[in-house]
Amino acid sequence: MNNFIFHMPTRVLFGAGQLSQLHNEKLPGKKAMIVTSSGQSVKQYGYLSRLQKELESAGVEYALFDEVRPNPTRKNVMDGAAAVKKEHCDFVIALGGGSVMDCSKCIALMAANPGEIWDYSLSQAGGKKNAEHNAIPIVCITTSAGTGSEVDIAAVISDDEAREKTGIFFPSMFPTLSVVDADLMLSVPAALTAYQGMDTFFHASESMINKNEHPMGEMFALKAIELTAKYLPAAYKDGSNKEARENMALANSLAAYYMLCTSAHTMEHVMGSFHPDLIHGAGLIMTAHAYYDFFAERKAAEEPMIKMAKAMGVEDASSGKDFIHALDHLIAEVGCADLKMSEVGITQAELKLYPQKIHEVLGGDITADPLPLSDQDYLEIYKKSYK
Amino acid sequence: MNNFIFHMPTRVLFGAGQLSQLHNEKLPGKKAMIVTSSGQSVKQYGYLSRLQKELESAGVEYALFDEVRPNPTRKNVMDGAAAVKKEHCDFVIALGGGSVMDCSKCIALMAANPGEIWDYSLSQAGGKKNAEHNAIPIVCITTSAGTGSEVDIAAVISDDEAREKTGIFFPSMFPTLSVVDADLMLSVPAALTAYQGMDTFFHASESMINKNEHPMGEMFALKAIELTAKYLPAAYKDGSNKEARENMALANSLAAYYMLCTSAHTMEHVMGSFHPDLIHGAGLIMTAHAYYDFFAERKAAEEPMIKMAKAMGVEDASSGKDFIHALDHLIAEVGCADLKMSEVGITQAELKLYPQKIHEVLGGDITADPLPLSDQDYLEIYKKSYK
Repeated sequence: MNNFIFHMPTRVLFGAGQLSQLHNEKLPGKKAMIVTSSGQSVKQYGYLSRLQKELESAGVEYALFDEVRPNPTRKNVMDGAAAVKKEHCDFVIALGGGSVMDCSKCIALMAANPGEIWDYSLSQAGGKKNAEHNAIPIVCITTSAGTGSEVDIAAVISDDEAREKTGIFFPSMFPTLSVVDADLMLSVPAALTAYQGMDTFFHASESMINKNEHPMGEMFALKAIELTAKYLPAAYKDGSNKEARENMALANSLAAYYMLCTSAHTMEHVMGSFHPDLIHGAGLIMTAHAYYDFFAERKAAEEPMIKMAKAMGVEDASSGKDFIHALDHLIAEVGCADLKMSEVGITQAELKLYPQKIHEVLGGDITADPLPLSDQDYLEIYKKSYK
Repeated sequence: MNNFIFHMPTRVLFGAGQLSQLHNEKLPGKKAMIVTSSGQSVKQYGYLSRLQKELESAGVEYALFDEVRPNPTRKNVMDGAAAVKKEHCDFVIALGGGSVMDCSKCIALMAANPGEIWDYSLSQAGGKKNAEHNAIPIVCITTSAGTGSEVDIAAVISDDEAREKTGIFFPSMFPTLSVVDADLMLSVPAALTAYQGMDTFFHASESMINKNEHPMGEMFALKAIELTAKYLPAAYKDGSNKEARENMALANSLAAYYMLCTSAHTMEHVMGSFHPDLIHGAGLIMTAHAYYDFFAERKAAEEPMIKMAKAMGVEDASSGKDFIHALDHLIAEVGCADLKMSEVGITQAELKLYPQKIHEVLGGDITADPLPLSDQDYLEIYKKSYK
């Protein structure tokens, strides 16, 4: 058994309707900066006004920063941190999906630390500094079942000019409190439901094949895989299916309790750094068959792949190829069999630039794949994935 | 899906040899009160001296309180708290099994709060007070795979005179840091290995049949049941089997991450309050068949029992009775089929005093059984268990 550490101090309220319990929770400050996306959905569906009412019941003041774009930028982070200071907020509430939660964590970090967020990035252009001060407290209210940001210390931030997409990680970026209320996810459109749900799936499947996997990680990952295979197609086909939404919300957080991502996540971050509009889950789906099949062909992850196939309902699974078939089937069931790199602007010619970037942009652990991948292997996987 | 909260802020180091990493961890104070049992094992096997060396490497001072008996008493708690104050310690390190960890948590509570530990008990004779101050920080280094105290806020303390055995629970009693190092469990004798391992099993099986169970609790419980059925017989038969010890250590903590005990635990606490020398796990084993069979006979917990039987390797399980057979088989495999209440001094005559005590002594949730149990039902279960 590999030695491992479990540390997940976030208090998490799971279940439909839990947002209405927020006023009963001990909130970590007196004035919250509510952070949302630049889109309209949290306003349109009434989530923002519900949150504001909860804060009023709890006697907590608030201000609003509603400028976070998908694949949030360093500018979003620094603007948000400036707003926190200007408004004298002492904690941050993220109300949104992965982009909003990731950006909020970095806003909370930069509200307490000098300089610029990229000073704290471990990427090539990053300053690789250690944050001297803890982030101010963070509360996450997730409106999607995708990144798992509500239960981890990670944030992914983009720099369009430097074409970098990097992970920022500090222990103080654990949310103090998170709300995983599937009622807030009923309005997620079908395609996004599929992308986010498959992101959940890949957090778990990368953990399973990760050579540092251990029994506790496996427990979380297999449960997330089981729930995703069972409930994602239903949530995709009928977004109002509450049982499916609740189970996907849980699967998403479970996969994030032990996220041991491999180079598949890094490969997607490279694609995203060239094409900021690429949705993370969609990028992962585009390379999934070729990535996993690379190892199935070489019988490099037979045991975890057989376990995953069984968790997906293939009771007589006996080889890694059974997982590949189950994966292809799941991707098709959620309408993603025809996602094309070319449709998001990726050209065949630029693929050759990608392998080098894998060593510059942070994402998963590129030393933890079942077999070490060379730049040639990465290129082969990208090329096989291209359509 | 039932709504639920997950909150487990303890940082846990899992794996053989992890005690040697303690000096690298951020310890929560400058002077530790090391709490151990009044027995010799942690001294004899060198665990105490290893811990002392770790603290010296970390530059942390320490004192020793080595007076905790099995089924620790309110006197143990108050003596320990007095020692903490006298020695000016600012945190507590428990080095031992469930008794030592439970006592340490209450020592940490009483080091920071006025009065007497029973003031904070919810039992009949207890003062039912809320603790005004947080417990001082607690580090748990577990030397047994039994109670799961290293990852929860619970402590069970006895009062021999009042014949009460009660649970004390405050959120500040979460350990800050725990070490689950199976190397410290290699010396546990076979019978105790069985009792503690079955305690783990029952934490999980009671959670499974608990009417408040939810998918996340089920994930933890089924994994603990799977690991216990697979590895406890091996750890019992050969205490030096490191793989079995490591997996039982993990099973024990997993079962405690979501411990939703039912009245089975309360029934044992009643037995323990009359017979302080009764080992908790042994008491649970004595009533297990009759308790679970009460529900199997009435088909009151078929689904969780079938899932448990499958996790125990009965692939074609189709009824609660399959679980009962698997349970009987496991108990026999770990040498506990012939445990007798009479051998620990329980008399048939006193059984009729027990049901009333169930309402006075705290333990599991007596409202959460698959069917509500009447005093007559409790008595029937005790009588069927008597030999």
